[in-house]
Amino acid sequence: LTQLRQDPLAGHWVIVSEDRSSRPIRTKAPPRSEPRGGWLCPFCEGNESTTPPEVEAKRSARSEPNAPGWSIRTVPNKFAALRPDASGDPAKGDLLEAVPGFGIHEVIIESPQHQAQMNQFSRTKLADILAAYRSRIRSLYEDKRIRYVQIFRNEGYLAGASLEHPHTQVLGLPLVPDVIQAMVNRAAAHQESKRGCLTCAIIKRELAQKERVVFEGKRFVALAPFASRVPGEIALFPREHQHRFEESSDDALSELAAELLRCLHAMRQAFDNPPFNLILITAPRAEGKAFPEKQLARTFHWHFQFVPRTTRPAGLELGTGLNLNPVAPESSARRLREALRDRATWAGTVKR
Amino acid sequence: LTQLRQDPLAGHWVIVSEDRSSRPIRTKAPPRSEPRGGWLCPFCEGNESTTPPEVEAKRSARSEPNAPGWSIRTVPNKFAALRPDASGDPAKGDLLEAVPGFGIHEVIIESPQHQAQMNQFSRTKLADILAAYRSRIRSLYEDKRIRYVQIFRNEGYLAGASLEHPHTQVLGLPLVPDVIQAMVNRAAAHQESKRGCLTCAIIKRELAQKERVVFEGKRFVALAPFASRVPGEIALFPREHQHRFEESSDDALSELAAELLRCLHAMRQAFDNPPFNLILITAPRAEGKAFPEKQLARTFHWHFQFVPRTTRPAGLELGTGLNLNPVAPESSARRLREALRDRATWAGTVKR
Repeated sequence: LTQLRQDPLAGHWVIVSEDRSSRPIRTKAPPRSEPRGGWLCPFCEGNESTTPPEVEAKRSARSEPNAPGWSIRTVPNKFAALRPDASGDPAKGDLLEAVPGFGIHEVIIESPQHQAQMNQFSRTKLADILAAYRSRIRSLYEDKRIRYVQIFRNEGYLAGASLEHPHTQVLGLPLVPDVIQAMVNRAAAHQESKRGCLTCAIIKRELAQKERVVFEGKRFVALAPFASRVPGEIALFPREHQHRFEESSDDALSELAAELLRCLHAMRQAFDNPPFNLILITAPRAEGKAFPEKQLARTFHWHFQFVPRTTRPAGLELGTGLNLNPVAPESSARRLREALRDRATWAGTVKR
Repeated sequence: LTQLRQDPLAGHWVIVSEDRSSRPIRTKAPPRSEPRGGWLCPFCEGNESTTPPEVEAKRSARSEPNAPGWSIRTVPNKFAALRPDASGDPAKGDLLEAVPGFGIHEVIIESPQHQAQMNQFSRTKLADILAAYRSRIRSLYEDKRIRYVQIFRNEGYLAGASLEHPHTQVLGLPLVPDVIQAMVNRAAAHQESKRGCLTCAIIKRELAQKERVVFEGKRFVALAPFASRVPGEIALFPREHQHRFEESSDDALSELAAELLRCLHAMRQAFDNPPFNLILITAPRAEGKAFPEKQLARTFHWHFQFVPRTTRPAGLELGTGLNLNPVAPESSARRLREALRDRATWAGTVKR
């Protein structure tokens, strides 16, 4: 069974994906040490045959597809949350709504090295990974049934990673998730009343006020969001208005790689190297006249979210959706800025 | 700082509560064994002076307030997420919205015994705890500034519990959380088009179809929700339409206690004794003519949610709000029903 279902009482959508249950279900979080030797990691160099055939790779000129010699490799997710071949009619009208679990779920294997963590990547390496993000988003949006592409990266067991080998997931969804739709709607409402981009206005305000600014780069600005969900959350925005990450130039990606490494360094220093999620928010697919690309281009502003797992969501969060953040974002920003004070500690990685 | 803030881009609300940061911030989840001896637990009998003075207690006739001799004790939360004395004007209009963190946050200490877990309570004991829920909800709604009362219970470190001593939290909020407002709106829309209660219609449909029914009791029905967020999720509904839990009779609470223990037994057996959250969804405060109690009484239907922490939310959930559930709710229901097949295993507790 692979289905998208809507809760009839609360309205939220859930992906029900039994394909994923062939991965062991962990009903408790085992406090295992994360690197596990000996076990055959499907993402390691030499084990290419254990994944579905690659859809894209950065590899040396002499090497063959699905064989060693790559530095980044994208494959369909073997335990896909959504499936390209899911079909059937949506169940509508009879109280319960569900649609077939159509979608595309891929894995970008970021390195042939098992032990690499994101903070160990050089700027050049990370820029290559970002170029893979760009390429996969473009490719997935070519399928007109895909309405939103979510890129996310889980690092650490408690952030939801099930394999420690560094990788990013790409999920092409047949619907625009409520959270993204809310962003679109809020941005459109602001545009209508104020004739400008909401995100651009916020960046301007935050840069003027300074207290939630983590750093101000040439092309990017890192902020502790006003309503941060957790201590240490960072949002990284391009300063110049742009609705689609996937339209970024190589130059922009190189700069972005350096700034993501700067965010990561700050977060690790200031919040004790937490497990974290990296989330890319880019524009959903436009839909003809009802939801034109032109309007989206004016109102939407892509960004990255770093969400360190510094709190444990409990009954309050699950029941009401309200997050409880015990550290004011202004204090988080101060701690993050302090962690960056000694430039020597992070600028080394960023130069490479 | 105690404030409710709205994210300007996505629209979600967050409680920023620095009072809570005097509790140590855990940036990693330490894999500690949960019962800790030796340490002075503020909820244990004999340590009453370490909590703020009690607001209500069930205690022996000879005992004094804030002294030993109680079986259930409700106190203000010392590390309150929201505060009765928070004031100030809401910051509105200038892109960023925040309101003062006014609210009431209490703890119901369920037992003088440190080690008790919910599944060890007798039916009578649990009915007494439910009576405390009823009493606290009624009391908090007497304050006209409280618009919603959330009752929640976290059991296990990974479910967000910071003290293992059994307790429930009561949070009176100055706003109706989006999730609850969405339930109100969906129920009202159904009422308008179908002239009936949405929840009653769903219960009827599920009982007819059977595949997601965990059990059918005299007064209550337990279901694996159609769009369950996690494997093993259970929703427990009163069969008779009732919008407010706090209007339950003693008889109903006694029956409810037995049925909650039945849910808990099923969840523990079928899903390997997971950490879990128990969440009570009851009607928000009515607001004059715009949102009359009479309409709420017709449309809202209270229920309990058991959310076992059988998955780890990752970047997908944080980015899009979409939960990924690897077990079909129909399979969960089957496992839960099987766990209840041998009545002898749980009926003992329920009789007491």
